[in-house]
Amino acid sequence: MKLFWAMVARFNQPAQVITTVFGVTIILGTVLLSSPLATASGVPADWLTALFTATSAVCVNGLTVVDTATHWSAFGEVVIAVLIQVGGLGIMTLATVFTLLVSRRLGLRARLSAQAETRVLNGSDLRRVVGKVVLFNLTCEAVVGTVLTLRFVLGYGEPVGRGLYLGLFHAVSSFNNAGFALWPDSLMRFAADPWVCLTVAAAVIVGGLGYPVVFELRRSWRRPSRWSLLTRITLTVTAVLLAGGTLVFLVTEWTNPRTLGPMDEHGKLLAAFFTAVMPRSAGFNSLDITQMHPSSWLVTELLMFVGGGSAGTAGGIKVTTLGLLTFIVWAELRGESRVNIGHRRLTEAAQRQAVSLTVLSVALVALFTYVLLVLSPQSLDHVLFEVVSAFGTTGLSVGVASAASPAAQVLLTLLMFVGRIGPLTLGSALALKERGRRYELPEEEVIVG
Amino acid sequence: MKLFWAMVARFNQPAQVITTVFGVTIILGTVLLSSPLATASGVPADWLTALFTATSAVCVNGLTVVDTATHWSAFGEVVIAVLIQVGGLGIMTLATVFTLLVSRRLGLRARLSAQAETRVLNGSDLRRVVGKVVLFNLTCEAVVGTVLTLRFVLGYGEPVGRGLYLGLFHAVSSFNNAGFALWPDSLMRFAADPWVCLTVAAAVIVGGLGYPVVFELRRSWRRPSRWSLLTRITLTVTAVLLAGGTLVFLVTEWTNPRTLGPMDEHGKLLAAFFTAVMPRSAGFNSLDITQMHPSSWLVTELLMFVGGGSAGTAGGIKVTTLGLLTFIVWAELRGESRVNIGHRRLTEAAQRQAVSLTVLSVALVALFTYVLLVLSPQSLDHVLFEVVSAFGTTGLSVGVASAASPAAQVLLTLLMFVGRIGPLTLGSALALKERGRRYELPEEEVIVG
Ligand SMILES: [K+]
Ligand SMILES: [K+]
Repeated sequence: MKLFWAMVARFNQPAQVITTVFGVTIILGTVLLSSPLATASGVPADWLTALFTATSAVCVNGLTVVDTATHWSAFGEVVIAVLIQVGGLGIMTLATVFTLLVSRRLGLRARLSAQAETRVLNGSDLRRVVGKVVLFNLTCEAVVGTVLTLRFVLGYGEPVGRGLYLGLFHAVSSFNNAGFALWPDSLMRFAADPWVCLTVAAAVIVGGLGYPVVFELRRSWRRPSRWSLLTRITLTVTAVLLAGGTLVFLVTEWTNPRTLGPMDEHGKLLAAFFTAVMPRSAGFNSLDITQMHPSSWLVTELLMFVGGGSAGTAGGIKVTTLGLLTFIVWAELRGESRVNIGHRRLTEAAQRQAVSLTVLSVALVALFTYVLLVLSPQSLDHVLFEVVSAFGTTGLSVGVASAASPAAQVLLTLLMFVGRIGPLTLGSALALKERGRRYELPEEEVIVG
Repeated sequence: MKLFWAMVARFNQPAQVITTVFGVTIILGTVLLSSPLATASGVPADWLTALFTATSAVCVNGLTVVDTATHWSAFGEVVIAVLIQVGGLGIMTLATVFTLLVSRRLGLRARLSAQAETRVLNGSDLRRVVGKVVLFNLTCEAVVGTVLTLRFVLGYGEPVGRGLYLGLFHAVSSFNNAGFALWPDSLMRFAADPWVCLTVAAAVIVGGLGYPVVFELRRSWRRPSRWSLLTRITLTVTAVLLAGGTLVFLVTEWTNPRTLGPMDEHGKLLAAFFTAVMPRSAGFNSLDITQMHPSSWLVTELLMFVGGGSAGTAGGIKVTTLGLLTFIVWAELRGESRVNIGHRRLTEAAQRQAVSLTVLSVALVALFTYVLLVLSPQSLDHVLFEVVSAFGTTGLSVGVASAASPAAQVLLTLLMFVGRIGPLTLGSALALKERGRRYELPEEEVIVG
């Protein structure tokens, strides 16, 4: 184990580490889910269903081709929960490790641990940081699980054992931004229940903010002036997207008889907020997505494409990337030759990383949308939604995945995998590869991807 | 007139010049098209139809809400042709003038005229360049008009007068990338006629390459090694998009009984090539767009969004911008700290301009798509196609514009206007505003937008 961390600390090929870890976990998950023990009926799931579900769980995606609650046995559900936990912890720890490596490489003060700038990162540092990440993850899940369990037992009369099971499963699923639910309608039955909805939303947001931001907030939440650029951008963009998304869904769906229409005003606000939180990138739904207005789908797609914070469990191009793009455009419109944010100059490397990640992501989404349109008889509305959902590891669905042909399901499986490991791999690889940097002015590095 | 050019030469606010010129022309056109003389029936067109058509003509867009051939009188058609000519010449000359201003400002060798680098650009220079642009435009239209007239008279038995009228109208419409046609089915009846299709395609490509590229080719087409970066990027990206588009349409539509299906192999190739040329950004069609596969729509949308060359009659973000983005991503993937293209380093200013233009364009298209989805009951497939077509001044239609509510038509009118003057305005404004530039290495400027 010591050797493993020492190796990781030397590793300059994040792509290989990440691909291997996720690939092997998915294969193991597929084998387990293919067993007759894993299904409720006792008839083994076919390999594609097992592969799709295992990939979706490990990549904390949440897209499904079968209903989780009715198709899988309790054993199958536990396998899924474990895969989610491994996938979520894996992405958080690997992202954190690579963030450290990048920080070290770029000679920046490593914010995540206490070591001095010049000290070489070693296996013991990594282990300590990873330990903190795991502890944080488990603590949050315990808190969320407790609240949900209490609500299920006290509010809905579930037996204690069943309530605990439901509470823990959905705590794991929400904190890791996975979005698997044990009800066929996801969380629609709780649309008006603030206990469930706000707890899940909080878990999703905290899990998706990313470890560096969460730990900086914990250390110095009362001194915003000392926050790093990463934290400031992440929080600002997150707040804007959540507020904007809530507002748009309120406006568009207010009178829709199949979504917000029948609810009272508190219910409308709660459901619109929940619907705005889920695209980043949990994928539960408390409204019937298929009945939402096409314009709400478009907004959801944009939110899913952006996703959440860097080095967390969220997917997408990340709110940091969107923030950087906005600052680049803003500086350009003002005719400034440098992109300055809060007394810091954004490095050219960070700018180019943000641009490259975004361009490649758009190209990837366009390519998969094209191929799926060729393969499937469905409209762009449906296909684009599902493709962005697979790319952004969101898992919201308008029904394309479950109705898709085997070839299309294989493609979505691939996209879930690439959407999960692509941005992180790319971001770390790009940052580590960066060479020939100049030092002119105080600069600050921001994680992209 | 002399005074006018002297003023333009001093002008540092391209946005104001362009907006004024285009706005005034559109208002004049709307007044003329509102007259009872302009319609075939003698009943004056309503103001929105007149405004939409005038905007579409001046912005060389080609989207229509009424059939051009049957709704308008000969007088109306001539007004449309004149508006196209004014709009096309306007965009070409203004783009050229601003290119010169930008070149002067940036201290680059002005490629478009013979003046030395240090010489101050004055009214007389501008007049000479504009004269060359106008002469070139009229010469090309005369050649294209002659070929088309001969074909209509000799091949289809049109009387000489009518043939000349049709030939000139479609020469103006194609060279200026306008896409207005005098047949209700656009050019579908000529789908298998290489004389018409290849002539129109050639006019569209040459008109859309942009004046700087065309003149550089004319001067030194036998010495590719001396071509500027702008010319090399424009030609390469153009070739890739045309070949790629042709291939995609061949593959996707080969067996479609309503498009390529019934044709022989030569016909298929011709129609696929024509369909690949038209999104940049002429907007004629020889296939029934509404019957194409949704995946072909997606590819068409991407091509329309990109458009053609800078400082020509084409719209979109321009092939140059796409080329720059590709080079930025490529350099980033190779871990290079500079973006080098063919022994030249791309300026940071050009990179940021390309990124800003693209981001703003995507935001614009997303915003208008959202609003139109809210306003209209149609699917994303249809709305996105029409919005991108309006933005890219392409004018290909899947029927949304003609069926749209007045509010939606007003929005599309606005988008046609912004899509036409936005990229040029933005590109020139950004380049002129740029300040505090450093000079480190040989750099070369590329026009973005
Ligand atoms: K998810
Ligand atoms: K056009």
